[in-house]
Amino acid sequence: MDEERTAAWWGRRAWELLSAVRARAPLVHCVTNLVSMDIAANALLAAGASPAMVHSLLEVPEFTPRCDAVCVNVGTLSEGWLPSMRAAASAGRPWVLDPVAAAASEFRMEACLSLLALRPAVVRGNASEILALASRSLAASSSSSTTTFKGADSTHDSGDALQDAKALARSTGAVIAVSGAVDYVTDGERVVGVSNGVAMMQKITATGCAATALIAAFLAVVEEPSDAMAAAACALAVFGLAGEIGMESGAKGPASLRMHLIDALYCLDEQTVTSRVKISLHS
Amino acid sequence: MDEERTAAWWGRRAWELLSAVRARAPLVHCVTNLVSMDIAANALLAAGASPAMVHSLLEVPEFTPRCDAVCVNVGTLSEGWLPSMRAAASAGRPWVLDPVAAAASEFRMEACLSLLALRPAVVRGNASEILALASRSLAASSSSSTTTFKGADSTHDSGDALQDAKALARSTGAVIAVSGAVDYVTDGERVVGVSNGVAMMQKITATGCAATALIAAFLAVVEEPSDAMAAAACALAVFGLAGEIGMESGAKGPASLRMHLIDALYCLDEQTVTSRVKISLHS
Amino acid sequence: MDEERTAAWWGRRAWELLSAVRARAPLVHCVTNLVSMDIAANALLAAGASPAMVHSLLEVPEFTPRCDAVCVNVGTLSEGWLPSMRAAASAGRPWVLDPVAAAASEFRMEACLSLLALRPAVVRGNASEILALASRSLAASSSSSTTTFKGADSTHDSGDALQDAKALARSTGAVIAVSGAVDYVTDGERVVGVSNGVAMMQKITATGCAATALIAAFLAVVEEPSDAMAAAACALAVFGLAGEIGMESGAKGPASLRMHLIDALYCLDEQTVTSRVKISLHS
Repeated sequence: MDEERTAAWWGRRAWELLSAVRARAPLVHCVTNLVSMDIAANALLAAGASPAMVHSLLEVPEFTPRCDAVCVNVGTLSEGWLPSMRAAASAGRPWVLDPVAAAASEFRMEACLSLLALRPAVVRGNASEILALASRSLAASSSSSTTTFKGADSTHDSGDALQDAKALARSTGAVIAVSGAVDYVTDGERVVGVSNGVAMMQKITATGCAATALIAAFLAVVEEPSDAMAAAACALAVFGLAGEIGMESGAKGPASLRMHLIDALYCLDEQTVTSRVKISLHS
Repeated sequence: MDEERTAAWWGRRAWELLSAVRARAPLVHCVTNLVSMDIAANALLAAGASPAMVHSLLEVPEFTPRCDAVCVNVGTLSEGWLPSMRAAASAGRPWVLDPVAAAASEFRMEACLSLLALRPAVVRGNASEILALASRSLAASSSSSTTTFKGADSTHDSGDALQDAKALARSTGAVIAVSGAVDYVTDGERVVGVSNGVAMMQKITATGCAATALIAAFLAVVEEPSDAMAAAACALAVFGLAGEIGMESGAKGPASLRMHLIDALYCLDEQTVTSRVKISLHS
Repeated sequence: MDEERTAAWWGRRAWELLSAVRARAPLVHCVTNLVSMDIAANALLAAGASPAMVHSLLEVPEFTPRCDAVCVNVGTLSEGWLPSMRAAASAGRPWVLDPVAAAASEFRMEACLSLLALRPAVVRGNASEILALASRSLAASSSSSTTTFKGADSTHDSGDALQDAKALARSTGAVIAVSGAVDYVTDGERVVGVSNGVAMMQKITATGCAATALIAAFLAVVEEPSDAMAAAACALAVFGLAGEIGMESGAKGPASLRMHLIDALYCLDEQTVTSRVKISLHS
């Protein structure tokens, strides 16, 4: 009974936030990787937000303060773009970090840690990324993990990273979202699980990056910074739900799923969102 | 009657130019933004042109003179790419400028103004972009506008920018194309309106950029530089018409519209183009 | 009879290699052009591999040795990325070179020649690209060709480049793959022809780049470096077959073909691959 009420509450909350994105069309500044540009921009547009991909340090200090939220994604990190990422993260807007393949190199890990110090509202990664970040960010004693490296694709289940995600949330003050079959979102105390989505989404490049961009759009419309957890959970649920509907729309593989997912994100209505969002308190 | 004759004339002209693009496969050099690369290249290929995305200053002086037309787009502008944009614009080929989000920063506005001084044949932007450019390029007295900034998406109707577009065309010698529900194309004296297109195209990222690239392809096949106005109007009409047919082909959202639009651009036939292009003299 | 047996052998070999990619999910490091990022990553994922787009020189020396294969593509070459391409090519992993538009500039040609000296296992290009490379790489006397420049699209049939491809293979030790209506793959002695594919694939940007990335994935799973010829031929056949099935799936133009092609790559089964791969010894 309680479980049902909670699910319904989350469904209404997800719809409220999606409706607010559509109504206000928040300007979301993305400093994102080269692979994700197209799908992240299209996901933001389909959800009702206005994407802006800007990466020059000559523009960020002037441009970012006028935006409603920021998405920083290190997928194709370079020395040239890192200062722009830092500047965007420091512009005083709510922002989300996507630590793609954090363990790919010492340079990348250091970049992620330096960005983490700039207090993102939310960090979203897969289990391997969150485990890698946590094992470096936290004192060695508090991290239980050893990470197996495999590029941008995860070699862990999201549940494997849950304890480290909680510890990372407590130490950084960020909401940590771990994507997987179930997405876990935690502020270090509470944990919610998001069960929307289909496995084939992992076979579309940069779906994780697009989900992170969507979290930024949802962050732009919450009332309180403390609602970051709701923004992250609802964005992931809405994105996953679009994937489910995409699959039901006759997707025959990852490319048709991608098309149907973006279409579904554009078409989501109140009845669908409130009845199908699957977010629940994790105990 | 006159109106009908004019519409028919434009329909035939659009078909002539599209046919010439298909027959000659002009090599179109794009220095374009990172978000638009995929859709701009695919739109050019679907229309029959041969896209070339090249941005190194080590290549442009040697490469661009061998191309048939040039498209410069400042969407993801950087200090590193700007000299290449200037070099491409100075290579003696007909070229089009897309001043994406011109008001995003002083750096970007200055870059657009410096490019404008290199005499593009055509400038295509949305109303907000053209208003921002005009308000800086023209003496303050001749510009009637104040611009409201909103990234790459317009906050104005194309008609709002018409007087400024005419003034900008007169002062720069460029044909100015203002995209919107109706696209206006002007050389400073004459104005034509292009009514093809569907609203959902704005929900696909970089459709404006792809339209600009298509204008470059059409510019490559006109006989006289003075036909730049026809090239711009016909390219926008053909692109908008592909969007209409895309919509009629069963698009259910922005992603399926994108697919059907590119397919339609590839499949357009004489009957469809001559009967459905909607260009008319604006009085 | 012999011919039939050979075709069957290749069909089984292609299936073995595709199955191995699916089973092992090789990590394929791509330093590829900005236009191809999305389709190359999606093609690799659809085939079962794990793509990693990394281009910073601060990451390559540490990252690439942990990858299973490397794809270097000069499509949007820049001074900044070339050292990373060289580093990735020198990391001791099997690697493939895609010399996109090799003749576009002296800078690009020199870059291609310097990469060629780093001993790629495979070079895949269209006829114009291979002819241009050969005419510069080989003593003038041994090259029969003059090249007509046309950006990234070929102005020659693959057969035109066959003799030069063989000579280039002998002089460099690389397997040379020339894409076209028939793809030719040669180690300098033997030549195999791959007849899968449909013409419309040329109207989708970066399909060649995606095919090259797929060759890298297949290279990652062959037992012996000397199997590079099989890896190249089978990857091209599988990619072309996916295009054929994409066409049969109701493609109405290049954009729907692209979608159906990626879906087909994901869905290919043993029966389809073994019966429809068209590879044969060229005599």
